[in-house]
Amino acid sequence: MALKRVMVLTGGGDCPGLNAVIRGIVKRASQEKDWEVIGCIESFNGVLREPTEIVELNEKAVEGLQIQGGTILGTTNKGGPFAWPVRQQDGTWTTVDRSDEMIRKLQYLGVDAVINIGGDGSQRISLGLAQKGLNIVGVPKTIDNDLSSTDYTFGFQTAVQICTEAIDKLVTTAASHNRVFIMEVMGRDAGWIALHSAIAGGADICIIPEIPYDINKIKEKIEQRYNKRHGYCIIVVAEGAKPKGGTTVGTESSEVGYQHIRLGGIGHQLAAELKAAGVEHDIRCTILGHLQRGGTPVAFDRILASQFGVRAMEEVIRGNYGQMVAYRHPDIVAVPLEEAVRAQNLVDPNGSLVHTAKGLGIEFGQDTPVSK
Amino acid sequence: MALKRVMVLTGGGDCPGLNAVIRGIVKRASQEKDWEVIGCIESFNGVLREPTEIVELNEKAVEGLQIQGGTILGTTNKGGPFAWPVRQQDGTWTTVDRSDEMIRKLQYLGVDAVINIGGDGSQRISLGLAQKGLNIVGVPKTIDNDLSSTDYTFGFQTAVQICTEAIDKLVTTAASHNRVFIMEVMGRDAGWIALHSAIAGGADICIIPEIPYDINKIKEKIEQRYNKRHGYCIIVVAEGAKPKGGTTVGTESSEVGYQHIRLGGIGHQLAAELKAAGVEHDIRCTILGHLQRGGTPVAFDRILASQFGVRAMEEVIRGNYGQMVAYRHPDIVAVPLEEAVRAQNLVDPNGSLVHTAKGLGIEFGQDTPVSK
Amino acid sequence: MALKRVMVLTGGGDCPGLNAVIRGIVKRASQEKDWEVIGCIESFNGVLREPTEIVELNEKAVEGLQIQGGTILGTTNKGGPFAWPVRQQDGTWTTVDRSDEMIRKLQYLGVDAVINIGGDGSQRISLGLAQKGLNIVGVPKTIDNDLSSTDYTFGFQTAVQICTEAIDKLVTTAASHNRVFIMEVMGRDAGWIALHSAIAGGADICIIPEIPYDINKIKEKIEQRYNKRHGYCIIVVAEGAKPKGGTTVGTESSEVGYQHIRLGGIGHQLAAELKAAGVEHDIRCTILGHLQRGGTPVAFDRILASQFGVRAMEEVIRGNYGQMVAYRHPDIVAVPLEEAVRAQNLVDPNGSLVHTAKGLGIEFGQDTPVSK
Amino acid sequence: MALKRVMVLTGGGDCPGLNAVIRGIVKRASQEKDWEVIGCIESFNGVLREPTEIVELNEKAVEGLQIQGGTILGTTNKGGPFAWPVRQQDGTWTTVDRSDEMIRKLQYLGVDAVINIGGDGSQRISLGLAQKGLNIVGVPKTIDNDLSSTDYTFGFQTAVQICTEAIDKLVTTAASHNRVFIMEVMGRDAGWIALHSAIAGGADICIIPEIPYDINKIKEKIEQRYNKRHGYCIIVVAEGAKPKGGTTVGTESSEVGYQHIRLGGIGHQLAAELKAAGVEHDIRCTILGHLQRGGTPVAFDRILASQFGVRAMEEVIRGNYGQMVAYRHPDIVAVPLEEAVRAQNLVDPNGSLVHTAKGLGIEFGQDTPVSK
Repeated sequence: MALKRVMVLTGGGDCPGLNAVIRGIVKRASQEKDWEVIGCIESFNGVLREPTEIVELNEKAVEGLQIQGGTILGTTNKGGPFAWPVRQQDGTWTTVDRSDEMIRKLQYLGVDAVINIGGDGSQRISLGLAQKGLNIVGVPKTIDNDLSSTDYTFGFQTAVQICTEAIDKLVTTAASHNRVFIMEVMGRDAGWIALHSAIAGGADICIIPEIPYDINKIKEKIEQRYNKRHGYCIIVVAEGAKPKGGTTVGTESSEVGYQHIRLGGIGHQLAAELKAAGVEHDIRCTILGHLQRGGTPVAFDRILASQFGVRAMEEVIRGNYGQMVAYRHPDIVAVPLEEAVRAQNLVDPNGSLVHTAKGLGIEFGQDTPVSK
Repeated sequence: MALKRVMVLTGGGDCPGLNAVIRGIVKRASQEKDWEVIGCIESFNGVLREPTEIVELNEKAVEGLQIQGGTILGTTNKGGPFAWPVRQQDGTWTTVDRSDEMIRKLQYLGVDAVINIGGDGSQRISLGLAQKGLNIVGVPKTIDNDLSSTDYTFGFQTAVQICTEAIDKLVTTAASHNRVFIMEVMGRDAGWIALHSAIAGGADICIIPEIPYDINKIKEKIEQRYNKRHGYCIIVVAEGAKPKGGTTVGTESSEVGYQHIRLGGIGHQLAAELKAAGVEHDIRCTILGHLQRGGTPVAFDRILASQFGVRAMEEVIRGNYGQMVAYRHPDIVAVPLEEAVRAQNLVDPNGSLVHTAKGLGIEFGQDTPVSK
Repeated sequence: MALKRVMVLTGGGDCPGLNAVIRGIVKRASQEKDWEVIGCIESFNGVLREPTEIVELNEKAVEGLQIQGGTILGTTNKGGPFAWPVRQQDGTWTTVDRSDEMIRKLQYLGVDAVINIGGDGSQRISLGLAQKGLNIVGVPKTIDNDLSSTDYTFGFQTAVQICTEAIDKLVTTAASHNRVFIMEVMGRDAGWIALHSAIAGGADICIIPEIPYDINKIKEKIEQRYNKRHGYCIIVVAEGAKPKGGTTVGTESSEVGYQHIRLGGIGHQLAAELKAAGVEHDIRCTILGHLQRGGTPVAFDRILASQFGVRAMEEVIRGNYGQMVAYRHPDIVAVPLEEAVRAQNLVDPNGSLVHTAKGLGIEFGQDTPVSK
Repeated sequence: MALKRVMVLTGGGDCPGLNAVIRGIVKRASQEKDWEVIGCIESFNGVLREPTEIVELNEKAVEGLQIQGGTILGTTNKGGPFAWPVRQQDGTWTTVDRSDEMIRKLQYLGVDAVINIGGDGSQRISLGLAQKGLNIVGVPKTIDNDLSSTDYTFGFQTAVQICTEAIDKLVTTAASHNRVFIMEVMGRDAGWIALHSAIAGGADICIIPEIPYDINKIKEKIEQRYNKRHGYCIIVVAEGAKPKGGTTVGTESSEVGYQHIRLGGIGHQLAAELKAAGVEHDIRCTILGHLQRGGTPVAFDRILASQFGVRAMEEVIRGNYGQMVAYRHPDIVAVPLEEAVRAQNLVDPNGSLVHTAKGLGIEFGQDTPVSK
C-alpha cells in the first residue's frame, strides 16, 4: 500500500513552540499505518526552489523537540507561492503568482496534504491555496496573542515570562539607583505582552497601542512614585504605542536591523518626551527585542503547541481540510480558514485585564478614572 | 470618618501566588478613601489566639510581593473557628465550635469584612461563617487545579513548570545511563499536574488517579522504548495513582513527614511492581515533593492571583458577600460560595488533554486504544 | 596521508559538562589536518562488546552540545577492561582482565590515542592502561569537586546552583508553615556541595561528612530559630554525613534504586533523631537526588569543560600521554596520572569556607566556637 | 559598655552580590557583643547630606538578603567626600573637598569604622580617607572582573550566566532565520564577560577591547559559517571593542541614557561595517545593557560576596584598617589599599582562555594563527 504524505512547514517570525507543533504532528502520524510526514524548508520556498528542499520527519527526528525554541524547518517572511520575487530585465524586482505551478509540483512530489504553521499572512496563503483545491490545514502562530479565533496562541506565555523576568532584573537596579526604567516589548498592534508583563512584573506604568498616551499623565505618575530624592519607576511600553493624536515612530524597533535603530523606537522616544516634559530623574531604556522570542518554551506553550500539532494531524487523517485548529478553553477545535483569518484580538481598554491593572495602580497614560 | 476594615487571611498548604493575591487586595483597597486592610496570622488562628496576631497591610508592606512564593501571613491546616482543639481533663483532645465567639471578636476588632484565601476546606469555613452572617468573600486556592467553578487556579502553572523543568533535567541522565526514571508529582485526587507535565516534558508514561493502571501495559511500553541494550523511559506518576482494582498506598508522600516516607509512596511502589513484573532495566525514582509548591510564581500565576485579589476587594467594596471569585476565560467572575465548594474538577479520561497525550504516544496504563 | 584517530569515552555517573568536553575535543581536532575523532559508547564497553559500538564525531555532531546535560556517548559504572563480568559454569559471576585484548583491539581499529573522561575509578583504569603502553589522556570528572589535583571540576557549580535554587524554593514554604526543612544533597565523602549551597541558600544548619554531628547542637540551633510559635529552619545535609561516634546509614540515598530508599537516607535519619531528641516543630525532608546532576550546565562549567576538552586534545596532538588535564587558577595544566589519582580534596573544618559559614551563623553540629 | 559602630556603604554601579556582602557583615557583627552596624544611604552621600540618611542594620534587616540583586543601601556615582558638587554664584558647578568635615561628622555620629563596598573609584576614596586616619576597610566590586588584586569579583559570574542564557535564546532564532546576530555586552576596558559568555554560549566570533578587530577577518568567518543560503552566526562584542587603528565609538552604550543610544554603540557600528564590507545576510543586534547586572546572584557570587562580607567585618574587629579584602583561590585575604587600587586585570591575548576560545574555533578578528 502506498503511503499518504503530509507536508509540514513553518512561516513568519519564529516563535517558541513551533518545534512542539511539528513533534505533535509527527508523533500522531506515526500511529497511523498509512501516513508519512515530510518537512518543507523555509515555509513554501523549499518546494518552490530548485533543487527542492524537503526533509523526512520521523519519530527519531522529533525526539525531545518540544524543548527546543525556533523551528528545525527554518522560516521566512519572504517569497511564497502568490508573490515570488522575480528580477525584471531593467534590473528592478516584481513578484509573480506561482501558486498553480506549486500545487502541480506538490502533486508530482506525492503530497496529499499540507499543514501550514504560521501567522495571519501565512493563513491567508493557506486560504488562497485551499480555494484552489489544495488539501490544507492551518495552525495559528502569533507570539502577540492577537488572534480572535483562538483563546491563546503558543509562544505568548513564553514571551510574557521572559519579559516578566526581565522586569524582575531591572527593578533591583532601578531601586538601587533611583531611576526610571523604560522597557520596550513586542506588540505592534496589540498590547497583550506589555499588559501581561506589566501586571506580573509589578510595573507602575503600561503604555499600549490600544490606549494612546498623554505624556503628562505619565509624568504625574512618575513624580508620585518619588518621595524627595528616593524612589523609582518601571514603565513597560509596547513597540506600537503612540501618543494621543500622534503616530507611532518606532514600529520596527524589535525586528529592526542595524540601520533602523538610530531612528529611535518608542522606548527612546518616550524617554525624550519625558525629559522634554521636565522629568529630572535618571531615565534608562531597555529594548528586549529578540530575547522575547527565543529559547525553550514554557510548559504552557509546549502543551498548547502539542495539542495543535496532534489535532492538525487528526484533521488531515479525517480529510477535514480548509480548517485552522484553535483553542477554545478547555477544548481544541477546528475553525474554517475563512473565519479564522478575520478580526484581530486587541486589548479592550474597558476589559477585565486593564481593569485589574488599574486596580493594582498601573497607569496607562489616559484620563479615565478607575471604574468600579 | 471612621475607616472600614477588611481582614485578609490565608489557609491550607502554601501555594505560589498567595502573596500576589494579598498585594492585589491591598493595592485595590489603597485606591479607596474609606477602607484599610489588616492581615490575620495563620488562617483564622491569629484572631482565635490570645494575644491576637494581626498585622497592618499597607502599600509599603506589599511592595514587590507578587514575586515572592509562600505567604507573608503564614498558613496552617490546623484549628479554625469550627474545630478548635481543646485538651480534655483526661488528657485527650477534642474540638469545640468557636465560630460565634470569633464573629463577636471580629466585631470587637472593628472588622467589617473578611477575605479568606484558601482551598476547599477553607471555603467550607467561609460558607459556614457567611451563613452566620459574617461579611466574607472567598478566593480559591488549589495547586492541583481541581476546582470546577474556575477555569484555572493560581499556583498550578508554576507547579507544572517546575515539574517540567525537573523532567528536562532527568531526561539527560536517563538517556546517558539507559535508565527508567519515575517522577512522583502532586495530585491525590486529580492528575492535572502529572498530565500537563508529562506532555510538556515529553514523558513516555503518565499514571494518574483517574485512570487505574495495569502494570503489564506499563511494562510493555517500557520494553518498546528500548532497543537491545539502549533506550530510556520517563514515567510521571501522580501521588494518588492506584493500580486497577487496587488502592493507593502512598497518599501522603508529598506532604509527608519523616515518619511516613518509609511506608513508601506510589513512586517506589511502582518501581517495585515493575521489578516484580520482570523489568530488568535500572529504575530510579525521584519525589519532587515540596519543590513543586515553592519559589517565585510564573507570570501566569502572578497575573491570575492579582486578578483574584483586585476582584475580591471589589466585591467587598460593593458589599457583595458570600461569594468566591473565579476565572471564566477571559473574565473574572463572582460565584456564590454554596455553588463554589461543590464538585471537583477531575481529569476526564476521554477529554481533550488525555486525547492529546495519547496522540503523542503517552501510555496511561489502560487498555483503551487511541480514539480517532 | 592516513588520518590519526583519537577515541573519546565517558565513564562513571553523568555530570553536567561532559558533552562540552566532547565538543571541545572535536572542535580542537577539526583544526588539525591529520586527526579524526571517534566516540566509544558506554565507557570502554563499546569496544569490548561485539559488535563494537563506535560513532564518528565531527563538527556537525557536536554543534550546540555545550548546552546539553548528560553525555551523548552514554556512560556506565559497570564492566571495563580490567574487570569484565563473566558468568561461570555454576551460574555465578566473576570478572576477567581483558585489558591486553582491548589494547590489541584498539590497534586493530586504528586508534592512536584515547581520551578518557571520568572520575577516580576511570582514571585508575587510565593509569593501568597507560602503564601497559596505551596512549591515553585523562579528563577529571567529579560532581563532588573532591579532587585535590585540580582547583575545580566541571558539574560542581551546576549542582551547587541547583541545590541553591531548591533552598530558595523551600524557604518560602518553610517560613509560611513554620517548619524545619531538611534537604539532603550529594556528597558521600566530601561536603562541598552541602557547604556551598548552605552558604548560598542562607541555610541555618549544614551537616557534612567531615564534621560528625552532635544532635543536641542541632536541636539547640533549631530552638534558637523559633520565637514562641513562629520561626523556621533550613538544614542542608550531605548524604555521607554521620553522627559523632556513629556511622553513616544512608550512603546510597542519592544514587539509590527503589529498593534502598526504604532503609532511609541520612535526611530521614536526621529527622527521626531530631524528633527523638524532642524537637516538636513540623519537620519535612526533601532528597534532591538526580535533579542535582541533570540539565544544562551553568556557564562556569561549560567554560571549564571546554577548556579541559581543548587541552586534552592538545596533549594528544603533542603526544604527551599518561597525563590528566587540570585547572590551577587561572591556568589549565597537565598532571601525570600517577599524581592525579592520589588524594581526595575534603572540606577542611578549619578552612576558609567553613570559617565564612560560621561567620554567617551556620551551625555544623560540633562544639567548636567561632574562630577569630 | 558602649557599643562600637561600623558604618557600611555601597558605591558605583549596582552589582549582584552587594546585598550578600551587607548580610555577611551584619551576620558576623551580630556574633560580637560590642559591635553594631549602620548603613549609609547612597555611598557617602547619606552622611554628607542634611538631614543625614543612616539606617540601622540588624539580623532581621538582612534576612534572606543574599538572594536579592541591587543594594538596599542605594548607590550612586555622584558626589562623595572629595568632590562634592557646589553651585557657584555665576550658576556653574564646581566641586569641593568635604573629607575633613565628613570625618568629623562620622566621629560625631559615633562611627568607629567604615566598610566601603565599591569599585576602583570608591577604593581610591577609601585610600584617601585611610590616609587621613579614618578606620576603613574596602570590599572590591566590579562586575567586569578586571581587578588584578583578586582572582574573582562577585557579580561577574552572574553577568556571564545572564549573557550565556541570552545567547542560548538568540541561537534558536538565528538558526531558524539564517541570520547573523550581534550581542553587545558590558566591558569598556576588559573583555572578560564577552570572552566567557562567547565560550559558554558557543559563539562563532568574539570581539574584545584587548584585541582590535579587522572587519575583513570577521566577514571571512561569517561566510565560512554559511553554506549556500543556510547557516547562521553569533557574534559577542564587548562595548569597549574597537577596530584596528580605530577608536571606540560607543563607550556609553550599556550605561546610556536615552540621549546617547542614537549615536550608536559598537554593536550597531559593527553591523554597519559588516554591511559596508559586503555581508549580505540579515544582521540583527541585541544590546543586553542593564539586564546583565540585575536580578538574583548565582550561587558562586552569593558565596564570594558572603566571604567578603564576613572577612571585612573580621578586619574591622581586628582593627586591621586600610585593607581591601580579596580572593586568592582558595583563600580570602586582606590586601593593603595602596596595592589594591593599582593595575587592571585585562584579557591576555596570549593567555589560557583566549587559547581555549581559539581552540573552539572562535574568531577574534585578528590575524594570529592558533598557537599550539
